[in-house]
Amino acid sequence: MSKTQVSKRQFSPTPFIDSISTSPSVEIEPSGSVDLKSIISKLSEEEKNELALILKYRRLVDYLATAQIYLKDNCLMTEPLKKEHIKPRLLGHFGTCPGISVVYIHCNRLIVKHNLDMFLVVGPGHGAPAVLANLHVSGELGEFYSQYNNSCEGVSRLIKDFSRDGGFPSHVNPQTPGCIHEGGELGYALAVSYGAVMDNPDLIVTCIVGDGEAETGPTATAWHSHKYIDPVDSGAVIPILNLNGFKISSVTIYGTMSDEDLIKIFNGYGYTARIVGHDVDHIDLDMSRAMEWAYQLIKKIQSAARSGKPIFKPHWPMIIMRIPKGLGTIKELHGKKVEGTYLSHQVPAKEPQTDEEEFKKLEQWLRSYKIEELIDLKTGAIHQELIDLCPKGRMRMGWNKHTNPEYHPLSLPNIKDFETKIDLSVRGTPKNQTSPTLQCGEYLSAVIEKNPGRFRIFSPDELESNKLNAVLKVTNRCYQWHEQMANRGGYVIEMLSEHTMQGFMQGYALTGRYGLFPSYEAFLGIITTMVIQYAKFQKLCFTLKWKHDSPAITYIESSTLWRQEHNGFSHQILVF
Amino acid sequence: MSKTQVSKRQFSPTPFIDSISTSPSVEIEPSGSVDLKSIISKLSEEEKNELALILKYRRLVDYLATAQIYLKDNCLMTEPLKKEHIKPRLLGHFGTCPGISVVYIHCNRLIVKHNLDMFLVVGPGHGAPAVLANLHVSGELGEFYSQYNNSCEGVSRLIKDFSRDGGFPSHVNPQTPGCIHEGGELGYALAVSYGAVMDNPDLIVTCIVGDGEAETGPTATAWHSHKYIDPVDSGAVIPILNLNGFKISSVTIYGTMSDEDLIKIFNGYGYTARIVGHDVDHIDLDMSRAMEWAYQLIKKIQSAARSGKPIFKPHWPMIIMRIPKGLGTIKELHGKKVEGTYLSHQVPAKEPQTDEEEFKKLEQWLRSYKIEELIDLKTGAIHQELIDLCPKGRMRMGWNKHTNPEYHPLSLPNIKDFETKIDLSVRGTPKNQTSPTLQCGEYLSAVIEKNPGRFRIFSPDELESNKLNAVLKVTNRCYQWHEQMANRGGYVIEMLSEHTMQGFMQGYALTGRYGLFPSYEAFLGIITTMVIQYAKFQKLCFTLKWKHDSPAITYIESSTLWRQEHNGFSHQILVF
Repeated sequence: MSKTQVSKRQFSPTPFIDSISTSPSVEIEPSGSVDLKSIISKLSEEEKNELALILKYRRLVDYLATAQIYLKDNCLMTEPLKKEHIKPRLLGHFGTCPGISVVYIHCNRLIVKHNLDMFLVVGPGHGAPAVLANLHVSGELGEFYSQYNNSCEGVSRLIKDFSRDGGFPSHVNPQTPGCIHEGGELGYALAVSYGAVMDNPDLIVTCIVGDGEAETGPTATAWHSHKYIDPVDSGAVIPILNLNGFKISSVTIYGTMSDEDLIKIFNGYGYTARIVGHDVDHIDLDMSRAMEWAYQLIKKIQSAARSGKPIFKPHWPMIIMRIPKGLGTIKELHGKKVEGTYLSHQVPAKEPQTDEEEFKKLEQWLRSYKIEELIDLKTGAIHQELIDLCPKGRMRMGWNKHTNPEYHPLSLPNIKDFETKIDLSVRGTPKNQTSPTLQCGEYLSAVIEKNPGRFRIFSPDELESNKLNAVLKVTNRCYQWHEQMANRGGYVIEMLSEHTMQGFMQGYALTGRYGLFPSYEAFLGIITTMVIQYAKFQKLCFTLKWKHDSPAITYIESSTLWRQEHNGFSHQILVF
Repeated sequence: MSKTQVSKRQFSPTPFIDSISTSPSVEIEPSGSVDLKSIISKLSEEEKNELALILKYRRLVDYLATAQIYLKDNCLMTEPLKKEHIKPRLLGHFGTCPGISVVYIHCNRLIVKHNLDMFLVVGPGHGAPAVLANLHVSGELGEFYSQYNNSCEGVSRLIKDFSRDGGFPSHVNPQTPGCIHEGGELGYALAVSYGAVMDNPDLIVTCIVGDGEAETGPTATAWHSHKYIDPVDSGAVIPILNLNGFKISSVTIYGTMSDEDLIKIFNGYGYTARIVGHDVDHIDLDMSRAMEWAYQLIKKIQSAARSGKPIFKPHWPMIIMRIPKGLGTIKELHGKKVEGTYLSHQVPAKEPQTDEEEFKKLEQWLRSYKIEELIDLKTGAIHQELIDLCPKGRMRMGWNKHTNPEYHPLSLPNIKDFETKIDLSVRGTPKNQTSPTLQCGEYLSAVIEKNPGRFRIFSPDELESNKLNAVLKVTNRCYQWHEQMANRGGYVIEMLSEHTMQGFMQGYALTGRYGLFPSYEAFLGIITTMVIQYAKFQKLCFTLKWKHDSPAITYIESSTLWRQEHNGFSHQILVF
């Protein structure tokens, strides 16, 4: 089914690793940002027109995001704004929305240009208004939910329903077409994205990481994830750090880092990092070039590996997008700067129902998008030239086939073939025992052989300490940052990060494949909340008629309770 | 009580932050490693003698670590090794021990040289044999536990008891003098260390981070912790990455990174990074110079800030110590390299009781330390010249005053003063309500004012979203990476990392001060296992007669259950 003709790889076991490999990595192109001025002067008319259209598109989706947060009536601003048009409780976060929409339209552009298999994972919290707005313009929201069709009534209903019972919540959630990652507990977008591209060689996932989210531990270590991507068997992620500099009431760490430090840290993580957005007036030009650059770098790395001449330690692309928080919102309120500060993080004007300055500036803000130039106000129909910027049919990100795959069970060996006979007459003697996990390893080897590219082991402890190492007779540990391990494929991933392993597994499973997570009982609790949130994600999925069932995710809990007396309390979680 | 005369700082509120600050940071000295060859040729006799003594000291502690793992009898190898001298179950991890001891002796050296207030936090898992060995040489173990005194019997008992019921476990745990951080669940050493130095301006904590541990999310983001250290009020951490390259059965991520990438990533995090250990034969010279360099850099940053001329965004020192895994163990076994590979991670020779090659090489290994040159085999007394390398009395790290401070309760305001009167006749109307957390913020302001330098708020969500922001009338958010926020002190720390905040709070509390952790109910579960492990740590502390009570740590659980309907499932943890 894959466009890429990857020949089935021969398995050969990894040799004994007798040295650490400290060979330099390959940064493929110089990092940094681009001088836009000289480029602008050379743009063709066609290019200028495209940029003008993209800007119009962004006005439309930013309007729709703003309206979802504020309006319960007069949704297309056909009459003067009145206080009774404003929702009684203002929910949703505007600050992150303009950045999400910049990424969204440039994903669309790249998909159309190169006929790409791509979808988007949105990390920043409460960014649903932007995603819903984009899905409305492409027509997808109306296809999944007929009440939100491309009409006056449809768009008004979307705006009114947002963040109310029966409507979409302020986080991207499983009800959102194309979503495989929910917000809420932040920190997992990146790991989920990398899990999704494993064994999907033609897939590219663009992942937006919020700069608040980037402060979490899980995100901080997930930047290493590319080291587990073999470019022969797997696709690629384009991570985009949405650097708007602020959280609810203060700065973010990454927002206060200089360009130099940002380039250093992401180079150090093993990326070729590129900064976008220094000239916010030309951010679309900047971003379109950066996305094209990222795509070409990915193709270069993949082509090299797939033609048998892999680049060792390739520095995959990542983009740092500096963008003012709440771009386009009210500039100043009550004498304080709003756009580009934390005051635009959540709801920029908090009390427009009672505060005259806020009310006036809210109306100015809503009118600034000139929605009448973008939508036929009589029918609610979006101008065709804006719809035409979106991919068509199943190429649209909400419809991406990987985000809602059909359910296919694993092919399982006969468990009876792995039976251990117990001679009851000598029961209990060491010679008549076997380790359950040792035996399980044999069974898993057969599972791996019967399901190439559909089953992976995500192991935060090490496989050998859980005695599952029989699987290494049929597959490798996948790790690309060591000469002896690179370019050998492998369905076992070991990284001492429960969070990253769980994120990988979620991304892998929600795109239709099967994951196993072995863990010491003492350390499985590290991902308690992730597992709970994942179960809630699934619970919501069950309520959606259009959503296929997901493959199971499986845990092996080893080294339970009293077997850890020599390690003391610290290796037990339940015994207290 | 502090040696440093820090005048009480006047509080002035942080101005409104209207821009992100991307000013470059100051790398104080060039990063990289040092050319040792030219230095060696110029060493004085005295310096050479000191290095020779340090090497002898390391032979002693590495012997003691090895013996703890292997021996139950013939503990000083006074007779030929027999199989019955070997423990039936071999526990403990040798691989990390030599590196821990390199750091330990060089901390000792720095303490003696500069009369420092310093202790050590040990991150790498199962490294207790090394720490216990060092505490035995300094005499501390015998002072805390008379059965482990400096005699044949004492040292033999230490060796025999290790990792058995009644003995020390293979992790550094609260029974270990000087310990404020237990192993087990890895990832928190760095955050705990930074918490310990807050409001302890003269304290330096050296923190060893294992390269396995460095893969965890919590460690990955804790490298940013220095951005929350105001050098006027707080001390300093010297982070040392113990880069031996391997986990139990494979490589570590950091072990496979080139020097160039390592320097980049830690520069990007905001450190001045220095690599040690390229020439393992001269690692003591290299390390002694690196520790002195780190100390001088710290003094420079602190002196500048304390004299009113702070360096903006100072790049504090950190050390990357490349050292072969299991340095000094068996070179090769069954045709495979052991020293410097993952085979030395845990127990390098696993079956010396039954395997002749292993038995022979184990004896050679134990004999290679020439223990007879280091200990009087008749009395068990350690040669005085080695004891003399340790600091004296309470300057020793096991006795460090911050690791076992006397219990002093917080000074609390009268809670009645913060009462809200409820007029029952109008009960339930908005005008007659107040927010409990809003009111709590007022109370906390008074707590902060009454307990300068003894109470901090560690806030992963933002203070304002939990309505505790009244405290900002009396203190600041401490953050050093923004011009408008730097050098203003502050007892509130906001970072979107529950793990880092919990780590800070543990380090702060175990060194005698009080922490408060406000969190949304949905996200408090992220640190479930940390809280459980901390409770177990305290449970063990209660059993130790020499251990003072610890200050309480306090949580505020906000935004519970049904108040999160607009955010959907993702903001609730208990309702399912």
